[in-house]
Amino acid sequence: MLSVNEAIDSLLNGARRLVENEEIDLISALGRALSEDIIASMDVPPADNSAMDGYAFRHGDWRGAQSELPVSQRITAGSVPQPLEPGTAARIFTGAQVPDGADTVVMQEHCEASSDAVRILSLPVLSANIRPRAQDITAGQKILSAGHRMRGQDMGLLASQGIGKIPVYRRLKVAILSTGDELREPGQELQDGQIYNSNRFTMHGQLTAWGFDVVDMGVARDDPEAIRDLFARAAASADVIVSSGGVSVGEEDHVKDVVESLGSIDLWKIAIRPGKPFAFGQVNGTPFLGLPGNPVSVFVTLLIIGRPYLFCCQGIADTAIHPVQHTACLDQRGSAREVYIRVRLAEEGLVPFSSQSSGVLLSTSWSDGLVRQPLDQDIKQGDQVEFLPWPVLN
Amino acid sequence: MLSVNEAIDSLLNGARRLVENEEIDLISALGRALSEDIIASMDVPPADNSAMDGYAFRHGDWRGAQSELPVSQRITAGSVPQPLEPGTAARIFTGAQVPDGADTVVMQEHCEASSDAVRILSLPVLSANIRPRAQDITAGQKILSAGHRMRGQDMGLLASQGIGKIPVYRRLKVAILSTGDELREPGQELQDGQIYNSNRFTMHGQLTAWGFDVVDMGVARDDPEAIRDLFARAAASADVIVSSGGVSVGEEDHVKDVVESLGSIDLWKIAIRPGKPFAFGQVNGTPFLGLPGNPVSVFVTLLIIGRPYLFCCQGIADTAIHPVQHTACLDQRGSAREVYIRVRLAEEGLVPFSSQSSGVLLSTSWSDGLVRQPLDQDIKQGDQVEFLPWPVLN
Repeated sequence: MLSVNEAIDSLLNGARRLVENEEIDLISALGRALSEDIIASMDVPPADNSAMDGYAFRHGDWRGAQSELPVSQRITAGSVPQPLEPGTAARIFTGAQVPDGADTVVMQEHCEASSDAVRILSLPVLSANIRPRAQDITAGQKILSAGHRMRGQDMGLLASQGIGKIPVYRRLKVAILSTGDELREPGQELQDGQIYNSNRFTMHGQLTAWGFDVVDMGVARDDPEAIRDLFARAAASADVIVSSGGVSVGEEDHVKDVVESLGSIDLWKIAIRPGKPFAFGQVNGTPFLGLPGNPVSVFVTLLIIGRPYLFCCQGIADTAIHPVQHTACLDQRGSAREVYIRVRLAEEGLVPFSSQSSGVLLSTSWSDGLVRQPLDQDIKQGDQVEFLPWPVLN
Repeated sequence: MLSVNEAIDSLLNGARRLVENEEIDLISALGRALSEDIIASMDVPPADNSAMDGYAFRHGDWRGAQSELPVSQRITAGSVPQPLEPGTAARIFTGAQVPDGADTVVMQEHCEASSDAVRILSLPVLSANIRPRAQDITAGQKILSAGHRMRGQDMGLLASQGIGKIPVYRRLKVAILSTGDELREPGQELQDGQIYNSNRFTMHGQLTAWGFDVVDMGVARDDPEAIRDLFARAAASADVIVSSGGVSVGEEDHVKDVVESLGSIDLWKIAIRPGKPFAFGQVNGTPFLGLPGNPVSVFVTLLIIGRPYLFCCQGIADTAIHPVQHTACLDQRGSAREVYIRVRLAEEGLVPFSSQSSGVLLSTSWSDGLVRQPLDQDIKQGDQVEFLPWPVLN
């Protein structure tokens, strides 16, 4: 059996970015992967500005709480100040540019103002209440790296640089398909011996959450010709193919032979629970990931094994998961497989779902994430364990 | 000053769901909030099925490793089995329905098969390798609750019930706007005294990530008539209005007077850093959240104060944030405000960004989330602290 890390490394060794660049409007950048480093072209803020409503003046001009400074100009946010006349103050508002010649801003609450002059009752320290030019960003600095996935704050960051269009990789096209005569679609009537195709929806939803362009190929009957046709069409329509339904060597499993006839396939046994059977290959040159068939196994292997590979194909730089620590409220002996336990985040810590069977998809909806139990390592009540909240897997 | 929790409670006390129901296809359910509890209408799996390729038989019929059972039928996944003839075995494949009369499945690896009979070399325990009916879900059981936000696994769960259309709340329409003569849009040229409007993009991206329908109202000049017009149009186009740009009582701040003339407004000081000034009111009956103006303050108050309120308006049941614990790699004295520290998740723990100024939006892009520092509580190297990874805030 391959360890989980060996499986991921094997996949990543053969992986490369499969998508070209395109340019999009910043406003629609959410979730997209940058295709270039972004270098700041300007300082942010572009000039010293006032953090308060008050008066800008030269610190050395202060002559005591009784002495007045004439108010020589009024500077609102967005207006262009004149250089400050020596021995005067400027009325200034939050966000407004500090005039040349001023080095300090005093809050209006610490002043007594008449119509054309101001008394500064309490002298602030030199350079108080000024947000200095380049406090946030210095021109020439790298602010985001190629392969970064855009979030709300990153959109704000690039906007602050005046960047209205950004270079990204086009969305990775991921074809999904299932095989099996027993599968029916929601809305259809169920006959004896049949089940509804949940894996299609789990995969569709999760891949969409990752920002991929899902190409939904539907289901092939358990028939070599039908399977061959579906795989060939999937390979022609997408950058990567993901299937559910354990690819095995049973006499009713035609996927292996079909994929072999169109390309190549390796059947792996990965030391993961839920999971274990996993296929990797290519169909007419298009990479193919064959996930297991059980509902929870599909979901967990997609998150743990599939995600780093697909992220790499998309050009995302950080393909690793970043677990946090949390307290286990469970006891479980270690095993020869890496175990992913569905847990809920409770007041006292991480509580497992009552059934950890790979058929019980309810366990994934009930829970807030996964505890990773390393090979051969026991988990005891109160242990700090690796916790992967669902959102962190997105 | 209001504590953060007092502010959130005040908002939630006056909050109610602002959106009606609609029915959508399950396949497009990602991120949507259910408007009804979902009750299982059928058992999953709907019948006992085989977990292995092998032979189904009655446990009591086994007469030893040398004795043969005739193979009376062949059951593939999706086919309808006949009741098992007494004293025989059925060839069966993974996922296929176990016939009435059989109570155990033996793996094919533990059998020796001829063309029409099988010898079971090693007897498994009674009911081995059978996934029992209703193992996952029992008909009548509540499987998801009203107000739940749909994820990939939830889509799979509902598909397993044959549910093809689901009842959800329509997307909440959130109008965003900013005010300020100093604001320019990315792509425009910057004049002296001006800055780019980053808050619009931060808000747009984050609200989109939450699944809201963002109505982008743009920017109003610092002019009472322009602000009045923009607020009135926002109120008419959306369920909630969110603005950035500290609403204060300065002589250049017209928002307070305008909103008061169209509805009502309260100015709060919240014990939060970054943040503090926060406005809450209504414009012609449409709720209005006035976030501060500094880039990081906008982002943090939107996540911590705005999120629970907006989620409630959307009909999402769980409006709380669920922090995890992690190790602090920082020392910081407690203060009279609740502090949200931008940190990166490193090998050794949570490392703070070098500048925690509210102007430094780069701190939010650089970091992996926030450490919450409670009022008046010191944080020391090695302490377990509350950590909010960015994705957990989505």
